[in-house]
Amino acid sequence: MKLLVNPSPEKWRKQLARPVQKSKEINKIVKPILKKVERTGDKALIKFAQEYDHVSLDQLTVSKAEIEAASKLVSNDLKEAIHTAQANIEKFHAAQASEELILEVMPGVTCRRKSVPIQRVGLYVPGGTAPLFSTVLMLGVPAKLAGCKEIVLCTPPNREGKIHPAILYTADRIGITKIVKVGGAQAVAALTFGTASVPKVDKIFGPGNQYVTAAKQLATKYGVAIDMPAGPSEVLVYADESAVPAFVASDLLSQAEHGVDSQVVLVTPSEKFAKKVLKEINTQLEELSRKDIAFKALQNSTAVVMEDPESAINLINDYAPEHLIIAVENEEETVNAIFNTGSVFIGNYTPESAGDYASGTNHTLPTYGYARNYSGVSLDSFVKKMTYQKITPEGLKLLGPAVEIMAANEQLDAHKNAVTVRLNYLKENKK
Amino acid sequence: MKLLVNPSPEKWRKQLARPVQKSKEINKIVKPILKKVERTGDKALIKFAQEYDHVSLDQLTVSKAEIEAASKLVSNDLKEAIHTAQANIEKFHAAQASEELILEVMPGVTCRRKSVPIQRVGLYVPGGTAPLFSTVLMLGVPAKLAGCKEIVLCTPPNREGKIHPAILYTADRIGITKIVKVGGAQAVAALTFGTASVPKVDKIFGPGNQYVTAAKQLATKYGVAIDMPAGPSEVLVYADESAVPAFVASDLLSQAEHGVDSQVVLVTPSEKFAKKVLKEINTQLEELSRKDIAFKALQNSTAVVMEDPESAINLINDYAPEHLIIAVENEEETVNAIFNTGSVFIGNYTPESAGDYASGTNHTLPTYGYARNYSGVSLDSFVKKMTYQKITPEGLKLLGPAVEIMAANEQLDAHKNAVTVRLNYLKENKK
Repeated sequence: MKLLVNPSPEKWRKQLARPVQKSKEINKIVKPILKKVERTGDKALIKFAQEYDHVSLDQLTVSKAEIEAASKLVSNDLKEAIHTAQANIEKFHAAQASEELILEVMPGVTCRRKSVPIQRVGLYVPGGTAPLFSTVLMLGVPAKLAGCKEIVLCTPPNREGKIHPAILYTADRIGITKIVKVGGAQAVAALTFGTASVPKVDKIFGPGNQYVTAAKQLATKYGVAIDMPAGPSEVLVYADESAVPAFVASDLLSQAEHGVDSQVVLVTPSEKFAKKVLKEINTQLEELSRKDIAFKALQNSTAVVMEDPESAINLINDYAPEHLIIAVENEEETVNAIFNTGSVFIGNYTPESAGDYASGTNHTLPTYGYARNYSGVSLDSFVKKMTYQKITPEGLKLLGPAVEIMAANEQLDAHKNAVTVRLNYLKENKK
Repeated sequence: MKLLVNPSPEKWRKQLARPVQKSKEINKIVKPILKKVERTGDKALIKFAQEYDHVSLDQLTVSKAEIEAASKLVSNDLKEAIHTAQANIEKFHAAQASEELILEVMPGVTCRRKSVPIQRVGLYVPGGTAPLFSTVLMLGVPAKLAGCKEIVLCTPPNREGKIHPAILYTADRIGITKIVKVGGAQAVAALTFGTASVPKVDKIFGPGNQYVTAAKQLATKYGVAIDMPAGPSEVLVYADESAVPAFVASDLLSQAEHGVDSQVVLVTPSEKFAKKVLKEINTQLEELSRKDIAFKALQNSTAVVMEDPESAINLINDYAPEHLIIAVENEEETVNAIFNTGSVFIGNYTPESAGDYASGTNHTLPTYGYARNYSGVSLDSFVKKMTYQKITPEGLKLLGPAVEIMAANEQLDAHKNAVTVRLNYLKENKK
């Protein structure tokens, strides 16, 4: 980790700048994949499975028998852990539901606003080295709570054509309506256009490599919505000497192990503390199975000593980290001063990994500075808020003249006339 | 208007298909505008004002004197109408505020979720024939209620370099922090990159022609968020013989006058009723100042006679109209069966224009079928929902083991270790 001491904004901005995303080259690969899936559907999916996942598939949809078999392969310990996480995620997301708003803004003019589920959603769960059943929980639980009618899960199979049992167990448990063995950009394409095995959906969720991310961005051109734009995962830890260096080191490492492009930042008022953390990182790193990945990520990472708390807060809000751990004495005031981050982990006993798995908050959060203008995934992500209005004849008599004047001044006669014909009718019919 | 009687889904889908948006050609024009503004800032804005708005500007920012002068040029009638609309919009949007959610999901594990304002927002208000002060209300009122720190309004000046007084009056009244004389794609570019006169913002809102729309889409590649993707405005009226043909005709016309590409659809169970409406349209059309525009829009419009109510509802949900007027006997059941639309206008006395101006709902709504997966603009559009979690030592003892098991099974050792180091520390220190 590079150490900066009381850097100027110019200096830390340069040092903390996220790597530019090379979308052009990746789009060149992803666009033909989308086209091919649009044109040839399942046939393309089977071909790409052979090419990229090195597996021959007869059947893309996961069968009931496969799901039943999976349950037996998951240990009871893991099942219990999944149930604990599920319960917390359900509680916190269910509490996010908003009641229907009904308001008579003036006599006879009633406005309403109601959450209506997005009908068909697609959840993407990456393959690769680790079976991300936690992502199944984070996307599937709110989708189910929101009342989405069709919840399709796409995830790549292994070379034997199988999906990890923990993913199948979790997906089945929370009520995913369909699980399909398809990964990568082709999964996103299938959810966008629909194929014989993969239903077309209205919104696509989930993390993925740069091909998946590019495919999601391209999918938006075809009328599909996506959860949010994505970049590599990030954590910023803001800690002073009231924190435990070993804890801080473990949090920085848990972000660093995600990938070599992970963004890991420490901000602290004390150079002495920073050095203790760096020493702890070296000790803990040795024990990790993903040591090589974490080591590389840390080479691009930065510890910033910022003695002035206001400058530290400015840095954090400017950087807008996906995850923010706050372990400082002046805890509450610091938390309240932050307005740009995805999720905040407060105090010495709240590691990011608690939120990644089981505290109840969602782990799908805005990266790459998008915490400035995007929320993380929540129940809201699976609904639309539709509005309604109903005006009585009395209400229109009251409100109508204002509409007529405004429409006339915007030179929209027909808008005005829609009120006038009604008011005239009421006059003529003495209503 | 074309008349379809009991068409098959294939037939009405084809007939109601929205025109394909030609983004490629437009992007070719818009991209260099973005680049130029990024590189030369205000200089480019002044140059484009000369080129596109045919006006020489010394000063881009609207001065206090201009705002004060504007107030005197707005009639008292219009002021009062604006105040009425503002009051309703404020009431309905203020009621959308959600309280902070605080939930102890298990002993010692507390999750929170709070709305935090997006700090800097840009509102675009188109120029052209009509001064859209209603859009200033619809975007500015919720931005202010949400607590956005910087609210920048961009709108093109006329050939005298002036902004319509009703726009200035409204913007000043609701607390816009800065008004800049810049329109078109260059306004979006300025809000994206920032110039000497135009602050860089986090999110851009507002309608516009296809150049503005294309610029907003391109802006998202530079880290800015936008309210929603956009196409031409739309209304679908679902009416039976309990409705008044003259009212329905006036509503269809008020959509048709927006532009030649406006989408106007009538769905009714009765062919007789449809023909009455078509006749009324011809009568009312003659009186309109924007008759030519409305006439052209109607040439591409469709009246669908659908005797079976279920098929009618399916059509509506499939088409997903921006505005939906429901004037049928079986009102409540029909309203509840609709899950894809932006805003619903219920009954004979609720013209769309009431919502366009003053009922209290927002008029910035998803077009082009995006009502399937997007909400209209609301208070939510101006905030992010940030989450927080705080775990006590007792809470971590309870939750930690589940996190350790899940992390181990996802092969993320460092994630597990962030819990383990803390639990070990608690054991060693007998806490």
